[in-house]
Amino acid sequence: MKYVIGHKKPDTDSICSAIAYAELKNIEGDNAKPVRCGPINPETEFVLDKFNVDIPQEIEDLSNKKVILVDHNEYSQAAGGLKKAELKEVVDHHRIGGLVTSNPIFFHCEPVGSTATIVADIYLNKNKEIPQKTAGILLSAILSDTVVHRSPTNTEKDTEIAKKLSEICGVDIEEYGKEMLKEKSKLGEKEPRDIILGDFKEYEFGEKLVGVGQVETVVPNEVLEQKNQLLQEMKKITTQENYNTLILLVTDLLEKDTEALITGETQNFEKAFQKEIKNNSATLKGVLSRKKQVIPPLEDTMA
Amino acid sequence: MKYVIGHKKPDTDSICSAIAYAELKNIEGDNAKPVRCGPINPETEFVLDKFNVDIPQEIEDLSNKKVILVDHNEYSQAAGGLKKAELKEVVDHHRIGGLVTSNPIFFHCEPVGSTATIVADIYLNKNKEIPQKTAGILLSAILSDTVVHRSPTNTEKDTEIAKKLSEICGVDIEEYGKEMLKEKSKLGEKEPRDIILGDFKEYEFGEKLVGVGQVETVVPNEVLEQKNQLLQEMKKITTQENYNTLILLVTDLLEKDTEALITGETQNFEKAFQKEIKNNSATLKGVLSRKKQVIPPLEDTMA
Repeated sequence: MKYVIGHKKPDTDSICSAIAYAELKNIEGDNAKPVRCGPINPETEFVLDKFNVDIPQEIEDLSNKKVILVDHNEYSQAAGGLKKAELKEVVDHHRIGGLVTSNPIFFHCEPVGSTATIVADIYLNKNKEIPQKTAGILLSAILSDTVVHRSPTNTEKDTEIAKKLSEICGVDIEEYGKEMLKEKSKLGEKEPRDIILGDFKEYEFGEKLVGVGQVETVVPNEVLEQKNQLLQEMKKITTQENYNTLILLVTDLLEKDTEALITGETQNFEKAFQKEIKNNSATLKGVLSRKKQVIPPLEDTMA
Repeated sequence: MKYVIGHKKPDTDSICSAIAYAELKNIEGDNAKPVRCGPINPETEFVLDKFNVDIPQEIEDLSNKKVILVDHNEYSQAAGGLKKAELKEVVDHHRIGGLVTSNPIFFHCEPVGSTATIVADIYLNKNKEIPQKTAGILLSAILSDTVVHRSPTNTEKDTEIAKKLSEICGVDIEEYGKEMLKEKSKLGEKEPRDIILGDFKEYEFGEKLVGVGQVETVVPNEVLEQKNQLLQEMKKITTQENYNTLILLVTDLLEKDTEALITGETQNFEKAFQKEIKNNSATLKGVLSRKKQVIPPLEDTMA
C-alpha cells in the first residue's frame, strides 16, 4: 500500500492532488490511498462537499510506510517520519528542497501554478480518462492555488488544463471561481493564532528558521483591524518556536497587494524588499504569491 | 543561453543526453548548448564518430550561467560553480541527491536505465521528430548504460524506446550493441590511476566521503592482473583525497559478476555486503550496477 500525501497544514491543492493521484495509481493497478497530515480547511471542505468526495484519513507518522509526496518536497513541510519512510514518488510544483533517497525514484516537479495541473496532465499523457468528480476537485485545486488564474504563478498550462477539466465536470470557471474565493475569505470567528498558523510554512535559510503564514482574502480589513492582537500572538510564537523571523502575509486578492506583518529579526526582510518596516508591517505592492514573490528574495538575502 | 551538461567524468549517457536535450530545447525555440566537464571516453568518441556528431565543448565553471543538468542531480557529481549557477532544469535517472533551488523548476527523474530513455520519451510526448543522428546517439547511450539491456537497471521502457530509436536510425541493436561493448572493454595502455578514475563517482554518506570507480569489461582479467598496482594507486588516492573508503568495481559484463577492490575503511563494506574482504578484494556475484546494487546497501550501512 502506498500512501499519497500533501504537506502539513494541507490546502485544497494538497488534498485534491493526493486524492486524484492515488486514484490514478489505482486505475493503473497499483494499490494507493490518499491521506493528509492536519485538519481540512473550510475551502477544501466546501470543495469536497460540492463534488461529493470523501475526506482523506489523517495520518500522524509515515515511518516504515511507502509514500508518494504531492505538492511538497522538503522534509520541513512533510508529515513526521518521512526520513524513515520508503519514498516512492514525488509530484510537485515548488522549489527543489533537498530531499535525498538511496534509490532512483519517479520525481517530477514543474513550475506551474498547482500540483493539480501536473496530476491532470499525467492522466492525459497516459490516456487515462479523468472521472467527473476527480476533474471537479482538480479544477478546484487549480483555481484555489492560482486565485482563479489571477496569481503570477499561473501559467498557460494551468489555464489550458483548467479549461479541459471544466468541460469534463461541467462547471463554469469564473462563476465557480468567485464562489470559491468568497469561501476562502470567510475567516469566521477565528482566533489570531489560527489566522497566523492556518496556511503556514516553515523554511530553513542557512541556519535560520523562518515561518511565513498567509491569509488570502477579498476583505483584508477584517484581518488587519486585528493587527495588534495578531502581532502580540506572533511575538509569542516567535519566541516559543525559536523563529529567526515570523511573517504573516495578508493578501488582498482583488487589489493584488499584500500587507506583511513581521516579528523577530526584521533587517533581512527590509534588505530583501528594500522596504522600511514601520510598526512591524510593510506593504508589498503587486505581491500575491508567497512561493514566487516572497520566498526567493528572502532566501537570497538570508542564505 | 542555457548550458546542458552531464556529470563529471562524463560517460556516453551524459554526453549524448546533453546533446539531444539541447537540440530539443533549440527545436522548441529556446537557446541551448550542450557542454561537458571532463574528457570524452573512448566509447563516447566511437559513438559520436559513428553518427557524425560534434564533441561538445568543455566547460570548467558554471558560475553565473543558466544550467540544465542531465544524468546527475547532486552537487558532488556536478561541474564546479553549480551552487552559483541559475539551475533551470534537471533530467535524470539517479537517486535524488539533495539539490536545493530558490524557485520552482522543471525537475524530472525516473527510475529507468538511462537518461537517454527519458530524453527520447520527452521528444515523443511532445510529438517532436527525433533527427536520425540524434536517435543514433540516444540509442547508443541506452545500450551503454544498460549493457545492451542486460543490466538489472534496464526497464521495459528502455527496451521499448531503444526499439523505436533503432528504427529511426536504422541500426541493429544486438549487432551494434556487441560492437559497443567491445569498444568499452578496450583499456589500451591505461595507467592504474586512469583505470580507477575513468568512470568514477563520489558520494557523501553522513560525514563520510566515499569514491566508487567502475570498469565494465568483457575481459576482466586484463584489469585484475594489475591488482597490486591498482591497490597501490588506490591507497595513494584514498590518502590524498581524504576518502573514508575507495572502491573499484571490476565488472564482468558477460559473467555478470563484479570483483570489488577496496581501500581505506573496509568494515562498512563487509557489513553492507555480508562479505569478508580478503587481500583488499571481494567478489560480488550477480552485481552489475553501481547505482542499483552497490550504492544503496553502502548508504544504508554508512548513513
